[in-house]
Amino acid sequence: MILEEIYKEEIEKAKILVEALPYIKKFSGKIVVIKYGGKAMDNDQIKKMIMQDIVLMKYVGLHPVIVHGGGPEINKMLKRVNIESKFVNGLRITDKETMEIVEMVLVGKINKEITSLINQLGGSAIGLSGKDANLLIAKKDISNGDIGYVGEIVDVNKEFLITILKDGYIPVIAPCAIGIDGNTYNVNADTAAGKIASILKADKLILLTDVAGILRDRKDERSIISQINYQDSKELLNSNLITEGMIPKLKCCIQAVEEGVERAHIIDGRIPHSLILEIFTKKGIGTMITKESYNNENF
Amino acid sequence: MILEEIYKEEIEKAKILVEALPYIKKFSGKIVVIKYGGKAMDNDQIKKMIMQDIVLMKYVGLHPVIVHGGGPEINKMLKRVNIESKFVNGLRITDKETMEIVEMVLVGKINKEITSLINQLGGSAIGLSGKDANLLIAKKDISNGDIGYVGEIVDVNKEFLITILKDGYIPVIAPCAIGIDGNTYNVNADTAAGKIASILKADKLILLTDVAGILRDRKDERSIISQINYQDSKELLNSNLITEGMIPKLKCCIQAVEEGVERAHIIDGRIPHSLILEIFTKKGIGTMITKESYNNENF
Amino acid sequence: MILEEIYKEEIEKAKILVEALPYIKKFSGKIVVIKYGGKAMDNDQIKKMIMQDIVLMKYVGLHPVIVHGGGPEINKMLKRVNIESKFVNGLRITDKETMEIVEMVLVGKINKEITSLINQLGGSAIGLSGKDANLLIAKKDISNGDIGYVGEIVDVNKEFLITILKDGYIPVIAPCAIGIDGNTYNVNADTAAGKIASILKADKLILLTDVAGILRDRKDERSIISQINYQDSKELLNSNLITEGMIPKLKCCIQAVEEGVERAHIIDGRIPHSLILEIFTKKGIGTMITKESYNNENF
Amino acid sequence: MILEEIYKEEIEKAKILVEALPYIKKFSGKIVVIKYGGKAMDNDQIKKMIMQDIVLMKYVGLHPVIVHGGGPEINKMLKRVNIESKFVNGLRITDKETMEIVEMVLVGKINKEITSLINQLGGSAIGLSGKDANLLIAKKDISNGDIGYVGEIVDVNKEFLITILKDGYIPVIAPCAIGIDGNTYNVNADTAAGKIASILKADKLILLTDVAGILRDRKDERSIISQINYQDSKELLNSNLITEGMIPKLKCCIQAVEEGVERAHIIDGRIPHSLILEIFTKKGIGTMITKESYNNENF
Amino acid sequence: MILEEIYKEEIEKAKILVEALPYIKKFSGKIVVIKYGGKAMDNDQIKKMIMQDIVLMKYVGLHPVIVHGGGPEINKMLKRVNIESKFVNGLRITDKETMEIVEMVLVGKINKEITSLINQLGGSAIGLSGKDANLLIAKKDISNGDIGYVGEIVDVNKEFLITILKDGYIPVIAPCAIGIDGNTYNVNADTAAGKIASILKADKLILLTDVAGILRDRKDERSIISQINYQDSKELLNSNLITEGMIPKLKCCIQAVEEGVERAHIIDGRIPHSLILEIFTKKGIGTMITKESYNNENF
Amino acid sequence: MILEEIYKEEIEKAKILVEALPYIKKFSGKIVVIKYGGKAMDNDQIKKMIMQDIVLMKYVGLHPVIVHGGGPEINKMLKRVNIESKFVNGLRITDKETMEIVEMVLVGKINKEITSLINQLGGSAIGLSGKDANLLIAKKDISNGDIGYVGEIVDVNKEFLITILKDGYIPVIAPCAIGIDGNTYNVNADTAAGKIASILKADKLILLTDVAGILRDRKDERSIISQINYQDSKELLNSNLITEGMIPKLKCCIQAVEEGVERAHIIDGRIPHSLILEIFTKKGIGTMITKESYNNENF
Repeated sequence: MILEEIYKEEIEKAKILVEALPYIKKFSGKIVVIKYGGKAMDNDQIKKMIMQDIVLMKYVGLHPVIVHGGGPEINKMLKRVNIESKFVNGLRITDKETMEIVEMVLVGKINKEITSLINQLGGSAIGLSGKDANLLIAKKDISNGDIGYVGEIVDVNKEFLITILKDGYIPVIAPCAIGIDGNTYNVNADTAAGKIASILKADKLILLTDVAGILRDRKDERSIISQINYQDSKELLNSNLITEGMIPKLKCCIQAVEEGVERAHIIDGRIPHSLILEIFTKKGIGTMITKESYNNENF
Repeated sequence: MILEEIYKEEIEKAKILVEALPYIKKFSGKIVVIKYGGKAMDNDQIKKMIMQDIVLMKYVGLHPVIVHGGGPEINKMLKRVNIESKFVNGLRITDKETMEIVEMVLVGKINKEITSLINQLGGSAIGLSGKDANLLIAKKDISNGDIGYVGEIVDVNKEFLITILKDGYIPVIAPCAIGIDGNTYNVNADTAAGKIASILKADKLILLTDVAGILRDRKDERSIISQINYQDSKELLNSNLITEGMIPKLKCCIQAVEEGVERAHIIDGRIPHSLILEIFTKKGIGTMITKESYNNENF
Repeated sequence: MILEEIYKEEIEKAKILVEALPYIKKFSGKIVVIKYGGKAMDNDQIKKMIMQDIVLMKYVGLHPVIVHGGGPEINKMLKRVNIESKFVNGLRITDKETMEIVEMVLVGKINKEITSLINQLGGSAIGLSGKDANLLIAKKDISNGDIGYVGEIVDVNKEFLITILKDGYIPVIAPCAIGIDGNTYNVNADTAAGKIASILKADKLILLTDVAGILRDRKDERSIISQINYQDSKELLNSNLITEGMIPKLKCCIQAVEEGVERAHIIDGRIPHSLILEIFTKKGIGTMITKESYNNENF
Repeated sequence: MILEEIYKEEIEKAKILVEALPYIKKFSGKIVVIKYGGKAMDNDQIKKMIMQDIVLMKYVGLHPVIVHGGGPEINKMLKRVNIESKFVNGLRITDKETMEIVEMVLVGKINKEITSLINQLGGSAIGLSGKDANLLIAKKDISNGDIGYVGEIVDVNKEFLITILKDGYIPVIAPCAIGIDGNTYNVNADTAAGKIASILKADKLILLTDVAGILRDRKDERSIISQINYQDSKELLNSNLITEGMIPKLKCCIQAVEEGVERAHIIDGRIPHSLILEIFTKKGIGTMITKESYNNENF
Repeated sequence: MILEEIYKEEIEKAKILVEALPYIKKFSGKIVVIKYGGKAMDNDQIKKMIMQDIVLMKYVGLHPVIVHGGGPEINKMLKRVNIESKFVNGLRITDKETMEIVEMVLVGKINKEITSLINQLGGSAIGLSGKDANLLIAKKDISNGDIGYVGEIVDVNKEFLITILKDGYIPVIAPCAIGIDGNTYNVNADTAAGKIASILKADKLILLTDVAGILRDRKDERSIISQINYQDSKELLNSNLITEGMIPKLKCCIQAVEEGVERAHIIDGRIPHSLILEIFTKKGIGTMITKESYNNENF
Repeated sequence: MILEEIYKEEIEKAKILVEALPYIKKFSGKIVVIKYGGKAMDNDQIKKMIMQDIVLMKYVGLHPVIVHGGGPEINKMLKRVNIESKFVNGLRITDKETMEIVEMVLVGKINKEITSLINQLGGSAIGLSGKDANLLIAKKDISNGDIGYVGEIVDVNKEFLITILKDGYIPVIAPCAIGIDGNTYNVNADTAAGKIASILKADKLILLTDVAGILRDRKDERSIISQINYQDSKELLNSNLITEGMIPKLKCCIQAVEEGVERAHIIDGRIPHSLILEIFTKKGIGTMITKESYNNENF
């Protein structure tokens, strides 16, 4: 038929859409918590693609939840207002003044930009901080001594998040928590995402990072460990395979899986449409940390 | 990055998925009534692709409703049980015995095959005849004289269909109606689809046919009329552009649009993934009959 | 009063209605699964009375579910299309061609006739096959060797049935199941009814048969065993009291009771209004298989 | 069959139950307001039959609402506490002391007896006075001069009654209203029933009286007018066919029909199961006042 | 500011309202069962204040349930109808005739007065007796021999009460129960309140009495025991601190707490706004019987 | 009684609570939009009192909605980052850089402080900007020429706000809107509050200001106009009674009333518990703009 000729390209596209069907079906109604941060925040094109991916996820039946970091905006603003960053053992000391700037940038700038971008792309997002409806309750994190207003999450308002998801909204969460002492605390975005995922019993926790995943050979992205169960990954922590920056991310994934999240992923957010690649294609990308020691499912 | 190299093909696929987002968003929650019949029923591969398209539609938020015809199966069975087909002016006389066979084949064979195929592909279909919950009520159609148990729909159980759609099922409807006189009536599948679409105030009525659409030059599929408003198409009816077989299909589309359906489509069901092409790509296929005389929307 | 004279007959009727009140109250909201088959299908008058009984049950607050057999229609049709019935050890071999005819007759003819009759009598029935919403899932039954597409139910879509009952419909189920291998399977209607009853935790399973019930003396219907607990009835199976045809029926009742159905009944469907007699009168009819060894309730 | 012999009587009963089906279907979900009073209150057997009828109505899907009068109990109690009944033009003067006794007897005795009897018969009744949830609001009725705390209903709490009916309860209402001046008012039970029926848009208002209905010849119950439209009945009011006691009852029926009640009935409550006769048999009893001048329906 | 001068008094009032906030928050959504009886029923001013308190409680989010006694009205009426009160060991023998008068007064007079008063004050009350919806089921109380129709509650229709509370109504309950033998029984109002509170798992049971609470020195109201746990109070029962009249009240409180009520209170109903004092002020009044041996909460 | 002596003070407080009942009843379920800004933001004690008032309002059944301004924090921050404020005709030019700082302070600081304070006081607040769920849509306001990103609200997401209110939350809204051009716009908080109130059909719009209300004599707060209808207030606009700062506030009130708000209030937010004074006391404070020309209600 001549028509098939004319529509050749469109038919190819249609086939690709239909190929996604098993994945759409598999994840329909599932909650996916996505940590968005790092270099993926700087590049406007990548940012837009990630948000498109998230809106698509929502429209085809998943429930994405976004937790974002602060990226270089915070440092830029601190510098602008002449707040000098002090460090103890490489950790920034967050005094009250710093915390105020951090909160303003995270909640008043980055959070709103993401929220707004999603809404422009056709989704319906609500930007939230941990203070809204007491979403994130924290206590002072003293695991590295007293470095100021750095918190550890002790509770998440699960009911509030579930209501928002059911109502069709995409929650975009800035990791500023309200302390049990009434102060504002900065919490690590990876850890916050992990905690939110485990409390929501999410199907997936996805950390968007600046690396390909966990590599057997740091210099070769082809050496990536595609899948590993969480117990084996504990051993990895003690090996020298894992770079310093990867350690907290892997720990966060392990804990999330231990606390009930089905799968945790470390993927490279700089890859175009990395979320779609991970969720809707057979290949998947990055490293997946699972509960089971062997995953013999077809997808 | 080397990763982008590795995932090149997948990224292209992801882009195509994302391209569908505006269409998914546009039709989210909309009802689409699809008449499935003709040669598209004979080819197993085409059949499967159509059902995949329908399942995909359901998963991404549309509400497809299928009305199917009988295809060659009915003739085959009539022959097998030695019922001779009698015709008056080219119209088959449907006596009680014929009607029984027609119903058995439509409801007990074709309907169940479609239902079953959709379920295998991951959807959740319910096969219905016009007798279930008095879904289709008919009276004798005497517009061509008394040719037996051929009916004209006088009522559709809208509430029942809406309930099924809301519950997440795909209704698959065999066009056998219950008469107001208690007899069984065969109704034309195109007309049934049109009536169901107008009662459901569907967004789209799509007739899957064996032709490219309405052509200006019957010998050239490239001469297709992509879009025409329903008043202009009435004039077409009187022209010699329209083949005999197309006349009732076009009439059916015109009536549906007059009765509140947003758009009616005549498309070639033999094209792979024709439904996806029509709904989720910019180009669209076939001929679209609309209410408005000029459609300046972007899609 | 002269009025009492005039209305003497009506008052008697009213008294009879009021006598039914305790039974209506007792079974309000309960599920009753009815296997309808055998000779009760041939007689139009009996058929109508059974359907009236079922509609009445629905209107006074019970939830009837019908599972029907095929009766002589199947054989008639097989003969008509020249399919010779082959038997092994008295069991019909159901090849693909036979299965197709069986399905067409069960789903496309008998099921629709019952559905339509109920609707004419004022109920609202939906005819279903095991393929609709994957209602009945089966695997090949090899307990008698490979005799073709004869299946054993492995799952019932309970949620779908409950939804239909709550929405006020009467489900009419043809015992054609979808195999886990994708093929169509014929399942025994008694067994299907029993399985459906136990999955729905029905209050009653009623098998409408061609005999009075289980008789102590086969030649004397007055020797009927009115009530027996399911453990005692297991012993009956080994006695010579039970005719060959009764064995699978009794087994089916025993299993249903073991799996949670309150009471299973074998009654004579040829008795006018046998269902009403069983449910709404003190006497009851047929044989009742119960969980308890002694039933001292008043009804 | 010998079984049919044995069950002959039961089968007859079953037939009678089934005969009621069209009526059950017709009135399913309909509201019926019943005024219960007069001699039908004195006879314990009749009282029980009426309450059985009402419970049966509820179980088969109607929504009965009862408004009761006081019968001779009020006079007995007034006498017992030495309150002398004073009359002006045949109307009792209801002073505060009298009103208190009337309320105590109506609300604290008769209402509770009826409520309790219904509950014993398997229904679930709630006894209410006009003061509960401000069910009946009245103003002083001065149409016969100032005769004390005799009221005219100005408002009914429809929402409250609907809630009770939906929750499955049978409301039993004593016609004591709360005045807009805060005082307690006695209202005529017939009028209260009529008002409640019209506000609820009831399908039927049934006045249970001590007479056969409206007779053409007062001495012959056979001369009863079975059906009359409300406009014709207005002319009857001016004729000498209507006895004095019947005038307010007929007026009440006419007004109810004018205000939206489908049918109003004056029937003889002393006839056993008069309500069942009226609703569930073809003959019906008493006099029916309708909107239409000619009733050609089948029932 | 001059304005602060002008509004000085109002600002003081506003402060008092705001001071109530922690208590309003604490008891939001909680059920409080209040026994209203004794001298607090005689004084119209006190009665009005108590009902205002109850309406306020409902408006600010609590769910009050009222159980009332009969006060002197019953005796007055018994005297008026010449029923001589007979006593055995100080307990009144309640024969059928007495029971009838008791019910008429409780249900037909006192209950309606309270209901009506609440409605006038802006609440929405429903007056109920134990017969409505079988709210209170009793058996004969023979703990003091056969003294007639005196009952002991064996069941409460919890679901009915919860529905009424959720619908926004204030239930006002007269302690007349329906016997399992079908007779009417008088039940002690304190005990009824206690039973209702424990079945509803109320947060508070409050007995409005004519005394300040439990006093260490009967002659000094300042010697009041403000708080005592229920085990310690059992010992009190055997001491001579408790007056005869207080014994059943204290027993009732102990039992309620044992059966799951959070706190039981004996307070002086004659104090203006005693309910508000107890619930919305820091001081509280009367004696509180608790589960815990030490209450270190802030309120 | 000695107890009355002891509880004298508490009884006085209880009386005050009860006095609020008619107001609580009157406003139960009503929406009140409160503009919070100006000097009432600087004083921590006043701020706390206002938030207490709001929490109390929510607990006693009203639905407060807060719209806040920026106060001096914005200027402080602009200064800190060396953004010079440029003015045209006294209006600040809001360029992109300024807008970014404004948004950070409003959304990331002030909004979160208010939200957090309410939550600490026992309410459950959600902080929102106009970007969340596209809450506030704006277009460029060119009524004063092009002064940058200053917007005029063209749409409010009413459904989203209603959902939040029904779920029990207090929305706290920062007046940063999303432009139809995708840019961020600063909108005047008074106007935003007015628009939100009129779209929600609020019962009250309350502007918390730094003045007593509209005064007849600017130097005497006693000369306040307590109540004026919106048509009369239009004339006021042209008089010299109104100060420059008051003009936009009064205009905003007039427009809100014209668009369906019942009452608009200009009150002095610096008065302790000014909101409680306005809503729950007879006197009321400030100036009320109403629809009706004369308000003869009792409150």
